[in-house]
Amino acid sequence: MTEIETILASQQFKAAAAVLKADHDRFVDDIITLTEIPSPPFGEEKRALAYEAMFNALGLEDVGRDGIGNVTGLRRGRGNGGLTVVAAHLDTVFPEGTDCTVRREGTKLFAPGVGDDTRGLAVLLAFIRALDAANIETESDLLFVGDVGEEGKGDLRGVRHLFTENAYRDRITAFFTMDGISLDRLVTGAVGSRRYHISFTGPGGHSLAAFGTVNPAHALAHVVTGLSQTEVPENPRTTYCASVLGGGTSINAIPNAVWLEVDLRSEDAGALEDLDATLHWLIAEAVAAENQRGNTESGVIAAKAELIGNRPAGRTAEDSRIVTATTAALQAFGFKAEPEFSSTDANIAMSLGIPAVCVGTGGDGGRAHSLEEWIDVEPENSVRGLTAGLAAILGTAGLWNS
Amino acid sequence: MTEIETILASQQFKAAAAVLKADHDRFVDDIITLTEIPSPPFGEEKRALAYEAMFNALGLEDVGRDGIGNVTGLRRGRGNGGLTVVAAHLDTVFPEGTDCTVRREGTKLFAPGVGDDTRGLAVLLAFIRALDAANIETESDLLFVGDVGEEGKGDLRGVRHLFTENAYRDRITAFFTMDGISLDRLVTGAVGSRRYHISFTGPGGHSLAAFGTVNPAHALAHVVTGLSQTEVPENPRTTYCASVLGGGTSINAIPNAVWLEVDLRSEDAGALEDLDATLHWLIAEAVAAENQRGNTESGVIAAKAELIGNRPAGRTAEDSRIVTATTAALQAFGFKAEPEFSSTDANIAMSLGIPAVCVGTGGDGGRAHSLEEWIDVEPENSVRGLTAGLAAILGTAGLWNS
Repeated sequence: MTEIETILASQQFKAAAAVLKADHDRFVDDIITLTEIPSPPFGEEKRALAYEAMFNALGLEDVGRDGIGNVTGLRRGRGNGGLTVVAAHLDTVFPEGTDCTVRREGTKLFAPGVGDDTRGLAVLLAFIRALDAANIETESDLLFVGDVGEEGKGDLRGVRHLFTENAYRDRITAFFTMDGISLDRLVTGAVGSRRYHISFTGPGGHSLAAFGTVNPAHALAHVVTGLSQTEVPENPRTTYCASVLGGGTSINAIPNAVWLEVDLRSEDAGALEDLDATLHWLIAEAVAAENQRGNTESGVIAAKAELIGNRPAGRTAEDSRIVTATTAALQAFGFKAEPEFSSTDANIAMSLGIPAVCVGTGGDGGRAHSLEEWIDVEPENSVRGLTAGLAAILGTAGLWNS
Repeated sequence: MTEIETILASQQFKAAAAVLKADHDRFVDDIITLTEIPSPPFGEEKRALAYEAMFNALGLEDVGRDGIGNVTGLRRGRGNGGLTVVAAHLDTVFPEGTDCTVRREGTKLFAPGVGDDTRGLAVLLAFIRALDAANIETESDLLFVGDVGEEGKGDLRGVRHLFTENAYRDRITAFFTMDGISLDRLVTGAVGSRRYHISFTGPGGHSLAAFGTVNPAHALAHVVTGLSQTEVPENPRTTYCASVLGGGTSINAIPNAVWLEVDLRSEDAGALEDLDATLHWLIAEAVAAENQRGNTESGVIAAKAELIGNRPAGRTAEDSRIVTATTAALQAFGFKAEPEFSSTDANIAMSLGIPAVCVGTGGDGGRAHSLEEWIDVEPENSVRGLTAGLAAILGTAGLWNS
């Protein structure tokens, strides 16, 4: 019998699974309660306070909020196997003032953020209750984390802090983030990204009177064209995107300033570095070329690339315990668990070489990041996902068998 | 004696000049009155109504507003010499809601639009009073015009209408626009311009998932780079400017749409046509190149160039009566009257081969198009400019000597 088969066959796991099932209404209540506490980007505090209170109510040890706002709570294991983090993110993509009231239709819940990642936050609570009710002891300690800043400009700042500043940072041996819905795919690779806001400035001037003066739009165009001609590997998948641009004030004026936002991504840290270097080289080349081409009597073109997003690439080895255990656990419950690359809280762990996966939270859902976001908490399917997730964690953290 | 010398020596002209001097306070009052009636782009009606009333009060014939909003009033001559237009523009660059209250400090007046071109409007009124008081008859009829739409996106629509739709359109034999301050320069050439808003569209898509899909920003960059490499003649002066650009919605998305505004100018109609053709060729090339380079499964790049400004080039012959008479008149009063090209209401006349100049309104001033715009109405210098301008008109329209 494999380790996962042993776990699934154990009385303890069966008891925990029964609790997940019996307790499902409470799990749904937790989703609703947490969803209705808005948690906009850089404004997660209110939800964090509520989540901290829930951790305390469940009896976790050492509950608190760290320097960046992550909520953490410890569930001690036998002390034999390091520390396994089980995380979900507190933040949503929705700005302050968004109506987060949950509308229920049958087994469907509609609300901004209800699935991404509020269901994930409730999953952690369900796990804790099931583990406790079943008196399960794990080999490694479990650190439950509701982290801030996963979405967009949050730039993974919560998990970044966890691995660089938090008191537990050096003890973490495995990292789960419960995010997304489907368990048919298992995130074992981190697509890294670098995002830049590039400003090009120059002296400007009247379109007629100052004709010939260097124009920062020319430098911007040089960078965009250069990027479009850049060869990138298909495998590891590596991409660039000239996404957003703007600048200039009047049709009859050479612009003083224009700007460009660029998104660079790769499954491979080295390929991302190479692409990043190419972009910086293109910027320098563009500035030099325009200062060479045009008149610089009133001033020169300059460029400044501001890093506005930085998510490291990485991957977890296929034969690592977290991947083999999670794959086996998910497949045991009928999920495909096909490995994929994505950009999640697991990026940071993967980039540091700490085994990590991102596991779906189960059930069904859609329209994430839109006001029409929904999840389906139809119990059978929902509980199947929860149970598979718990099995994956136990397969990784180890179930101590008295 | 030259014709101008004859005019300047005449009792009639001396009488008119004396009126310009004696009447200067009223001229200043007119400037203040008209400046304080806001006249934003495409919102000249209120000032036009007041100006129409002033034309009526001065006894001009056939006073009215034409189909586009120009105020016109006729002062008949001897009927021997066609129709000389003397125009100033009603519109300012300042948007609705701008405080146009005039602040006076000594001989200086401060207010948005006070010089450009409200002083010009008052100059016409001063001319009419002086001509009447001196009982001057001109050879040609004089049509006084307060025109709309000279500035920016107004795109010379008032004067364009005057020459294409107005009932007087076929009778005009000479065209003066009183605009700008200095009489040391005399606008005898029209810098033509074509202004485009170019939209580039494509299917868009996720920066990672849809990588390789055609990107409209690449086409935009191709056009900007191509334009920056375009050879244009120095003489006739011909210029281009990639002025304003924008587009894209999110750093992690290939944009659906980006846009670019381009200003093309030339002193020569043919050179402007050539440059315009180059721009259109570049746009077509950019679209084709990006559709060739990228993946077009979800859609193709398309571009649309919308003409948002169109001012024809042209020039008035150096030996035309309007140029020789005006130059002589201005120089007789100590002004340099150096010929220059500019973009003014005179563009339309020049492009149609109708002799035209743009003459400064005199006095001193600065900061036009800014909220700190000012003029100096110190009487001696101010009256010198007015008198020179009137001499130029009489030299062109002909002073009938009984």
